[in-house]
Amino acid sequence: MTEKRIGVIGSGDVGKALTAGLAKHGYDVVIGTRDAAKLEAWRKGLTGTVRVGSFSDAARHGPIVILATHGAGTEEALRIAGPAHFAGKVVLDATNPLDFSAGMPPTLFVGTTDSLGERVQRALPEARVVKCFNTVANAKMVDPTWSEGAPRMMICGNDAAAKREAEALLKELGWPGALDLGNIQGARWLEAIVPLWVRAGAVLGTYGHAFKVVT
Amino acid sequence: MTEKRIGVIGSGDVGKALTAGLAKHGYDVVIGTRDAAKLEAWRKGLTGTVRVGSFSDAARHGPIVILATHGAGTEEALRIAGPAHFAGKVVLDATNPLDFSAGMPPTLFVGTTDSLGERVQRALPEARVVKCFNTVANAKMVDPTWSEGAPRMMICGNDAAAKREAEALLKELGWPGALDLGNIQGARWLEAIVPLWVRAGAVLGTYGHAFKVVT
Repeated sequence: MTEKRIGVIGSGDVGKALTAGLAKHGYDVVIGTRDAAKLEAWRKGLTGTVRVGSFSDAARHGPIVILATHGAGTEEALRIAGPAHFAGKVVLDATNPLDFSAGMPPTLFVGTTDSLGERVQRALPEARVVKCFNTVANAKMVDPTWSEGAPRMMICGNDAAAKREAEALLKELGWPGALDLGNIQGARWLEAIVPLWVRAGAVLGTYGHAFKVVT
Repeated sequence: MTEKRIGVIGSGDVGKALTAGLAKHGYDVVIGTRDAAKLEAWRKGLTGTVRVGSFSDAARHGPIVILATHGAGTEEALRIAGPAHFAGKVVLDATNPLDFSAGMPPTLFVGTTDSLGERVQRALPEARVVKCFNTVANAKMVDPTWSEGAPRMMICGNDAAAKREAEALLKELGWPGALDLGNIQGARWLEAIVPLWVRAGAVLGTYGHAFKVVT
């Protein structure tokens, strides 16, 4: 990664955690939001270079863009950001298609024959989408600590080079690496693990957990 | 477990692995099949007490019945076995609703608003169904060894006592215990982890892996 610039789209807990962590690791970050004023106090408390902008500002900033939007609002956010701005970029899709309409624990609004990762790739046909970060809590995304052995981040996507860039970034952020689970259709199952993750968190009494593939 | 009798319905690799392992652990097992003759040579090579019978014979044998049928054939197998024979019993559902019609890796034929575990519970309203064994390879179901730390078996079901019985059995079979992920609706996600498990196996070059919840 020669250009240490990343755009983050979405300013909820995930967007803020990734922005703060990336800035701490020396990245120049633009976080895109619909409500810049609300982020000013938070931004002032950060270490590093962070600018608050629009979704479009974030999409245009740097060779990597991270999607950290609310699941149901993701496709609209991409339309607002302008799909052309993502052309050729590595897009790390951290979103989850969670449906809380029937209460907790959530289900998915995409079924099992589609995924939000695939929808993102269809909405951004010229981007190189990698599903990433969606299976861990925001507090574990950067510099995670583990008492039972660090897992690799589970990722998937159609572009092998983009997945290697995602893994390089993950290693910079304190992960042992990525577990590449194939093409973007794998997002169906990386997203479907999240309702199970929510159930496990309720049992464990912590949401600092993750699924590790062990042999 | 005072009565060491278990019925196993289904005689594919999963049914055979569980039957052999349970017999080795001192259980008196009836394995139910549609083709008893085909199992005779296999049965003669086993240690312990194993009888080959019909689906109905297996369902009537002992306080625990394990479903190890092909996913798509599960509901028909229960009709053939006779739902009344399952009344009050602990039914450990090891099945997966895998759909290979579009090739590898598989998807699910139940979507995300239903599961085979829920269908089994609806088909056997008087049974106490626990989803169990469906997230690991048959070679790991009994006396598993792990190089990276043993995971607990992920289970779910509506009956707390049945889940405790499932966990007691798992401990007898060499598991550190069970991770109880809530009611039988959790089967939607325990089943949805299996296409991801298949993808991970393709990457790892082994199907002796499992998902471990780590913190």
